Amino acid sequence: MLLSALGDAMQSEKVNQQDANVLSDNAATDSRRGFLKQGAALVTGAASAGLAQGAAAQSLAGQPWERVYGAAFTGYGQPSRFEQAVIRHIGKPYGDLAPGTGAALAPIESLEGIITPSSLHNIRSHSGTPDIDPKQHQVLVHGLVARALTFSMESLWNYPMTTRTVFLECSGNSNRALAPQPAQVPAGAMHGNISCSEWTGIPLRILLEEAGMQPEAKWLVAEGADSAHMSRSIPVEKALDDALIALYQNGERLRPEQGYPVRLLLPGWEGNMSVKWLRRIKATAEPTHTKDETSKYTDLMPDGRALQFTFEMGVKSVITRPSSTMKLPRAGIYEISGIAWSGAGRIRRVEVSTDGGATWLDAALTGEERAKCLVRFRLPWEWAGKEAMLQSRATDEKGQVQPARNEWKARYSPATIYHNNSIVTWAVGADGSVRNVYV
Amino acid sequence: MLLSALGDAMQSEKVNQQDANVLSDNAATDSRRGFLKQGAALVTGAASAGLAQGAAAQSLAGQPWERVYGAAFTGYGQPSRFEQAVIRHIGKPYGDLAPGTGAALAPIESLEGIITPSSLHNIRSHSGTPDIDPKQHQVLVHGLVARALTFSMESLWNYPMTTRTVFLECSGNSNRALAPQPAQVPAGAMHGNISCSEWTGIPLRILLEEAGMQPEAKWLVAEGADSAHMSRSIPVEKALDDALIALYQNGERLRPEQGYPVRLLLPGWEGNMSVKWLRRIKATAEPTHTKDETSKYTDLMPDGRALQFTFEMGVKSVITRPSSTMKLPRAGIYEISGIAWSGAGRIRRVEVSTDGGATWLDAALTGEERAKCLVRFRLPWEWAGKEAMLQSRATDEKGQVQPARNEWKARYSPATIYHNNSIVTWAVGADGSVRNVYV
Repeated sequence: MLLSALGDAMQSEKVNQQDANVLSDNAATDSRRGFLKQGAALVTGAASAGLAQGAAAQSLAGQPWERVYGAAFTGYGQPSRFEQAVIRHIGKPYGDLAPGTGAALAPIESLEGIITPSSLHNIRSHSGTPDIDPKQHQVLVHGLVARALTFSMESLWNYPMTTRTVFLECSGNSNRALAPQPAQVPAGAMHGNISCSEWTGIPLRILLEEAGMQPEAKWLVAEGADSAHMSRSIPVEKALDDALIALYQNGERLRPEQGYPVRLLLPGWEGNMSVKWLRRIKATAEPTHTKDETSKYTDLMPDGRALQFTFEMGVKSVITRPSSTMKLPRAGIYEISGIAWSGAGRIRRVEVSTDGGATWLDAALTGEERAKCLVRFRLPWEWAGKEAMLQSRATDEKGQVQPARNEWKARYSPATIYHNNSIVTWAVGADGSVRNVYV
Repeated sequence: MLLSALGDAMQSEKVNQQDANVLSDNAATDSRRGFLKQGAALVTGAASAGLAQGAAAQSLAGQPWERVYGAAFTGYGQPSRFEQAVIRHIGKPYGDLAPGTGAALAPIESLEGIITPSSLHNIRSHSGTPDIDPKQHQVLVHGLVARALTFSMESLWNYPMTTRTVFLECSGNSNRALAPQPAQVPAGAMHGNISCSEWTGIPLRILLEEAGMQPEAKWLVAEGADSAHMSRSIPVEKALDDALIALYQNGERLRPEQGYPVRLLLPGWEGNMSVKWLRRIKATAEPTHTKDETSKYTDLMPDGRALQFTFEMGVKSVITRPSSTMKLPRAGIYEISGIAWSGAGRIRRVEVSTDGGATWLDAALTGEERAKCLVRFRLPWEWAGKEAMLQSRATDEKGQVQPARNEWKARYSPATIYHNNSIVTWAVGADGSVRNVYV
């Protein structure tokens, strides 16, 4: 009966539950009892509704916060003090010499749904977060255009906008999962260089149209106003397709770490190309080969050559709950929950295995109607208290399938660090502990 | 040519632009020049691309933040210091005697897109925000059930979840627009008791199924753990339809003001019924007639009687930009942007008028595929520098149309304060100032 309730629950808006699947390691267990054993407690002595009401009064007596007047309104709210441990995983390769250089990864193991809170959005920065006064900031559009134009922020805020929910993944996400030994850290500290926000901004093609981009223009170079002047070359086709000049993130203006007051947004492409703190876009005939796209962001191949301009992020997924460093308190039914995405478009399918890839079941998806956006996948799982190996495998609408780890590694030099979209494995021990393993 | 660019821009994902409409008060003006006049500035002397590059170098020289190393990573980010003015509009009817009683409204005039940042979500509280320790908090399900159950938070966090984006509107939203004289305050201070979040939680029917709700149960009463013990009666049909036990908001756990660690969520219904800080749900044969649903939240009719249990929020819209207290700096093209919603389901259409309702044009919609969710509507408008009267009118999938102010007022007693979903009018003066008016 719980199974039918689960099945119904999965039918709610935007959820496709192909089958009311429960991955069960113990078919003999009654599923309802599984949930009861796991969490909900019978009120003592409650054999009937009447008794239960009496017991209820007891169990409801006396939390201190019910007896005192609560806190005042705040202009700008913050999380509960009991959630203070939920923060980004900060990686500073140069330590306190350059405390804003490196990456801060989203704690995906603590998040649910699709939207990443802006306060926890992953960050990749090359020289810290600049403190930009929007009254002084301008965006210049120049190069192979009929008329070079500068745009004040006041002007940009009055332009026509569109809104779209899009993931941003650093091309170096999951490079920590290429270390010789599997790290025993939370999922976000390895795979959290990915986030997803609702972005609102101006289609870039409108600004290019205003400047009168010339037919010889085949590339753009976008440059940031950080002290690194982070710059990337972008094919004109992408700019005219779905590139946004983003001004708002999750309803409010961009956060400083995300490019306040204005960033480029290239849906589905390497995060670093969505240049933050955007100060100029120049139309060119050829790629500019900036320092950022020659010294970094190339893929080392087995023959020693470097592959340049891998723009699109591959199809990928990761189970966030349960995940490494967590512990299942007891045998019973759990929900396996995770995120999937593809730079090529929509996610079509996410399969989940609890036996290291021997058998797979389709998970229910939320948000799969959106292209280049996180999808939440979920599947109930009955854990019998024995060893298990959890994996997820995503397929996108182009038919691309997330590769196995060894399959992915065979494509590149052992020294490569970008575009690792291979399958992640979490091993569950008989004691319920969850570990990161390579298979 | 700009018009065609606008038309194309509106075609992007999730945007239906039925016509590339521009509401124009001055058909003779070239639209491209309108945008240029308004904001973008030609780089001085830039008659060709070559010259522009020279000029560009000049215009790019020298912002102080490009020359210094930026700020360090933060675990939990905050908005730019230049956005500090964007905070909730706090209304405290009892002043500092009860600084958490009343409402704090979302600054909708400063927001874009559909999602409301959790930090700016509207709040309605009856006795402040309790400081709840999730390790101590429990939810009791009792009354007409086979077995009364208590659920710890640890247990609830392991239940199967679904994710859905839903608006929450206080039934008292826009009651300030019923004052004898139109208030000259920002749009959010009148109409901002509405917000929209991505909520993740457990379908309530799963918990009722576990407790074994009895056939005689026709109503539930939900009670909060605030010191007011805010309580509402809810028909069982809604509980079994789309009610959620919400645990996460916009990816992270609920904010304290939104019911941390657990709230009820009744999509499309009066916000106060989505009981925050949920501590129990009791199944009953009849409505409980709690203090909160008899002393408040009833609608005064013209004959002096009070209508009880108006659960569903009506079809409604409001233009957020431009809106009252703003000023248009100069004649030119602007984007009219606003939000629309209906408790009955999807928004089918939003029309915009700039002449006080004499003529209407369809706006482009974003998000209209979702039921009981905010929709963003947008329409380009060329303002000729003359007086104008801006209005929006929403229609939902049930065919319900947002009523005119006088039409709405005729249905109720002059003393009523709930469920005002009537059309809002902003008057634009010849000087560009925008005022709240009644028509």
